Parts: sequence; structure tokens; C-alpha cells
Amino acid sequence: MEVLILITGGTLDKVHDTQTESLIFADKAKSRVENILRNGRCDYPRLHILMQIDSLEMTDVHRQKILDAIQTAPQSRIVITHGTGTMEQTAKYLDGQAGDKTVILTGAMRPQSLGKSDANFNLGGAIIAAQTLPAGVYAVMNGRVIKAQNVHKDTQAGRFDR
Amino acid sequence: MEVLILITGGTLDKVHDTQTESLIFADKAKSRVENILRNGRCDYPRLHILMQIDSLEMTDVHRQKILDAIQTAPQSRIVITHGTGTMEQTAKYLDGQAGDKTVILTGAMRPQSLGKSDANFNLGGAIIAAQTLPAGVYAVMNGRVIKAQNVHKDTQAGRFDR
Amino acid sequence: MEVLILITGGTLDKVHDTQTESLIFADKAKSRVENILRNGRCDYPRLHILMQIDSLEMTDVHRQKILDAIQTAPQSRIVITHGTGTMEQTAKYLDGQAGDKTVILTGAMRPQSLGKSDANFNLGGAIIAAQTLPAGVYAVMNGRVIKAQNVHKDTQAGRFDR
Amino acid sequence: MEVLILITGGTLDKVHDTQTESLIFADKAKSRVENILRNGRCDYPRLHILMQIDSLEMTDVHRQKILDAIQTAPQSRIVITHGTGTMEQTAKYLDGQAGDKTVILTGAMRPQSLGKSDANFNLGGAIIAAQTLPAGVYAVMNGRVIKAQNVHKDTQAGRFDR
Repeated sequence: MEVLILITGGTLDKVHDTQTESLIFADKAKSRVENILRNGRCDYPRLHILMQIDSLEMTDVHRQKILDAIQTAPQSRIVITHGTGTMEQTAKYLDGQAGDKTVILTGAMRPQSLGKSDANFNLGGAIIAAQTLPAGVYAVMNGRVIKAQNVHKDTQAGRFDR
Repeated sequence: MEVLILITGGTLDKVHDTQTESLIFADKAKSRVENILRNGRCDYPRLHILMQIDSLEMTDVHRQKILDAIQTAPQSRIVITHGTGTMEQTAKYLDGQAGDKTVILTGAMRPQSLGKSDANFNLGGAIIAAQTLPAGVYAVMNGRVIKAQNVHKDTQAGRFDR
Repeated sequence: MEVLILITGGTLDKVHDTQTESLIFADKAKSRVENILRNGRCDYPRLHILMQIDSLEMTDVHRQKILDAIQTAPQSRIVITHGTGTMEQTAKYLDGQAGDKTVILTGAMRPQSLGKSDANFNLGGAIIAAQTLPAGVYAVMNGRVIKAQNVHKDTQAGRFDR
Repeated sequence: MEVLILITGGTLDKVHDTQTESLIFADKAKSRVENILRNGRCDYPRLHILMQIDSLEMTDVHRQKILDAIQTAPQSRIVITHGTGTMEQTAKYLDGQAGDKTVILTGAMRPQSLGKSDANFNLGGAIIAAQTLPAGVYAVMNGRVIKAQNVHKDTQAGRFDR
């Protein structure tokens, strides 16, 4: 079963910049997802870096680009890495548009590059969810599968499962 | 949906001992799974440490203890952490005995305590598999779901997906 | 030989805050220096947390507080952790005021909590410098000892040794 | 001031081998010291990999090779990475033979590759000691400078400073 991972950025892919002391996207042609897959000894997914942006910058133009990538992909099992800030909006934008494909949104609260991140755990779950769930749009966060219509971030708690 | 994690040890739970320069189980009353769940911001699974042993030491007496724990657990969604060396034997021992429960074996090739481990990725996948798969016994390794009868470690490659 | 470590904060002691996605001082009563010493298996220095501030906030009022702590300390070998942004100003403020004491300023370009930091390397050097150098004020950064009057950060390169 | 680092191996340079579950020297043409220097933003020392062996395998033939490297080096400030098991014997072998050079032995109780290692802290200290101490042979461990004749590992405690 083939799995495609569409990269859109978000906290998962940010790195610490020593000069500005802020989190940035260092190299927009690479993704920390490569590190996660290498550590996870998971070598079969195809990666496609669609964009590397903070999810707060994501507009419907970007969401349409994601949807186009889903619809034109030869794979029917798709994971999307996405910032947590607007994961809800993207889940709802995509919902009902994915046809017979299984689409899993995931991301991280702490960048993979900083260690002690939730990125590896979340991506491990998303890749399994993409292969085991029926067609539809879901998020995988906090060890839970959440249907598109129920995706909501409690920004105070930094969680999707409350 | 409740999830139970039964801990049996394996490489996932080992730590480096500076005196002997070997990998040991430091504290048999604790598990590195707690660290993985904390990093993964996943706080709902119940943990039960059944044993902390190398899977090469695992006999059918241990396997029966695992089976008893599965059968008497109130939860029907169960993840078992297990050494990779005899995961195949345990998967086949449990297969057909789990009744209406979904049982997922997982583990790691590199201890969680050493960093750059596959443990977080694998456990993230196993917890999702436990909630999305029908009753039966499976392994989750290398980002793949493997049915009990097909679980086999290529010891040369250190993989379950070839 | 006794060594005192005066903590003033700086990047070394910052942690990533998932809510604001910025670096903060999480617990002003603790210091990441404790982690560095534990990893370094170095258990004899006395720690004193003077403040936990970004060095860009440091004024001469803070510098006087540091100087008072140096002058009243029973130890004559003193390490000061400090942000890199104004380490030059503090080195020059203290220079000539430390009497017969050896005072070593050090810090980090990347927080200790984020991994792959220079903090452990720098502090290891500063503690040795405090014991081996004659009385005076110095910085230890980039594996170099720098006299107070020569301390200068090349902010573009993020270095003190050019 | 030029600094030469002679690599001889030891725990510092070992990596975890997933197949044998033991610590090995993976690539004898490379050293984890390169990682430590990169993290420490210290780019000037010259590295020379003399050997990559466990210090328990070290014989006087190896020690003579180290001594030859010290005596023929153009640098007079030299750090030697060495296993902790026989650091005492090598320190005493070299003592009195280094002429007008400052020679610092250092190593680690936990491999640099496993994280939470003392390697970065120790090497940071050794590099400063090489530049600040008069000619002679010393070890730097546990944040302490130890003269060659006093180097002794308490194997029970895993320390050099008791």
C-alpha cells in the first residue's frame, strides 16, 4: 500500500535560528519528516514538499493547492503535515473533497529539531491511520483519530483531544 | 475508546549502563513508554508493566502471562511492547486467542533512552492501529501493519517489512 | 578548589514555549546548568541563581548585583553564565573590580534544552578556566579564553573568536 | 594558539549497534569529536585519528604510538581522547616524556552518540586546559584537572575525582 506525505510546514518543520532566537524554516527544499522516517526505519512513503509555511499564514489559496495535490496524486493514502494553528480550517476545507482517498492531517506542538517533540509519535500514528481508515479526512494528534468536522485545537491546553 | 499498554521490555525499554557498557533494564517498576507518551502528549492509555525482559529470554510461560493479561483486561484495545527478537513467536502464540480484542505488538530496534530511536514512531503507530483495526493480533513496525501470521524479523536488515 | 557558578540567564537557560512558540525562562528558581553538571558528572560547584534574564535586558543595576555577588562570595573561582548579546559590556564592567578572583563569563548560542547546544562544551571549558587562570575577568566561548577587554561578539557570525 | 586533538577511541567515540545490541566503533576514519566541536562552535583544533580502540585493548605499543605523535606534532598544545578504563596507565606512560608540551587526556563515561553524555563537557574543559596549563601531562574529567601521577578511575563510582 503506497503512502504519500504532503509537507506544508508548521511547527514540526521549524528549526531554531541562533541569530534571531526564533523558529524558522531553514531550508524550504527539505523537511524534518525525512529525519522522522529515518529514525522510524520507515522508508517507503513518497514525500512531496508543497510549501513550508506557518499555518497562521495559510489561506484558502494554499488549501486549494493542497486539495489539488490530493486529487492529482496517484496514491489514495495521504498524510499531510500541517501547523496546528489552522489545522481545523484545513480539515474542514478538505472534508468531502477527497473522494475515495484517506487523508490524515498531523503536525507537532514542538519542532522535531528541538528534541522531545511529539512529531515522531504523531507521524507514526498518521501513517498507520492512512493505511487503516476508510476514505475521508481526519487528524491524528495526541494518539487519537479525529474526524474532520471534530478537529479543534484547544489553544490554551495545546491539545486536540479535549 | 480505552487503550491498555502492556509492557514486556525489549530493546525499547533498555538503558545504557556506564559500568558494564551494556544495555540493561534499569528500573523494572518504570517504563520508557511513559516518556514516549509524555513527548507525544498522549495521556489517556493505561500502562501495565507485566515484565521487563529481553525478548530472547521470553518463554511460553511469559507468553501465557501476556495472554492472561489480555484476556482479563477490561479494555479491548491493547498495545504490547516487546523485544523484536521473538516478536514473531509471541504474535503467533497470541494469534486466535485474543477473542474480540485488537492486539498490537510493537517495539524498537534502538532504545528510546539513546535518542534517534524508532520507539516513538512505532508506539505512535501502534496506538492508532489498536483503535482502527478489527479484532485480531498484529505487529506495527517500520510504519506497517503486519498480521500475526506474517510477522517475521529479517535479522540481517533489522526490519519487519521485507 | 571551590568553584561558584553565578547564574544570570541568557540563551543557555531558555526553553521552548509551545504556546507562544518563543524561548522563555520557564522556572526562574532552576537552571539548566544543573543538567549540564549532571551530564558532565561534575558535582562540586556551588550554584547561585542571581537572576534569569535575557542579556539584552541587562543594565548596570544588574551588573552591580553580579559584582556584589562576586565580591561577597567566599569562593575565589567564579563562573558566570550570561547571555551572549551583552557579555562584552558585563566583562568590561567587571574588569578590574574582581580583586584577586578569577571570573569567567560563559553562555551559549543555542539553549541547552534544545539539544545540540554549545552550552555543555562552553561550561566545561569555563569551569576549567576558573581553576587554571590567574585572577582577572575573562570569557570562555568557542573553545577560547578571551580577556575582558577583548570580549566582542560578532553578531553576524555568532562568534567571539574572530 | 594551535591545539591538536589526537583521537584514540574509547567510550566517547562508540555508537550503538542495533544488530549486536552492543557499543562499537562504526567508522574508524571518523570521530564523534567532530560533532562535539561543531556543537561547541569551536572550529580551530586540528584532528588526527590515531586509532579507534577500547582502552582495555590498549598496550604499550599503542602508547608508544601516541607518544610518537605527541613528539612529532608541530603543536605544543595537545588533547588526547582516550577510554577511561586505562587512562591512568597512559597518563603515567606519557608523564615526563612530553617535553615542553601540554598534554591533556580526556574521555567519556557515556558515548557522545547516545545523548546526555559527559563528552562535550569534558572535551570543552580539556581544550581550555591545553591552552592554560604549563607543560606536563594531565587528565580532565569531572570538571577537574588531575596531574598524571594522580589519575585514577574509581571504577565502582565511575569517577576520577574521588
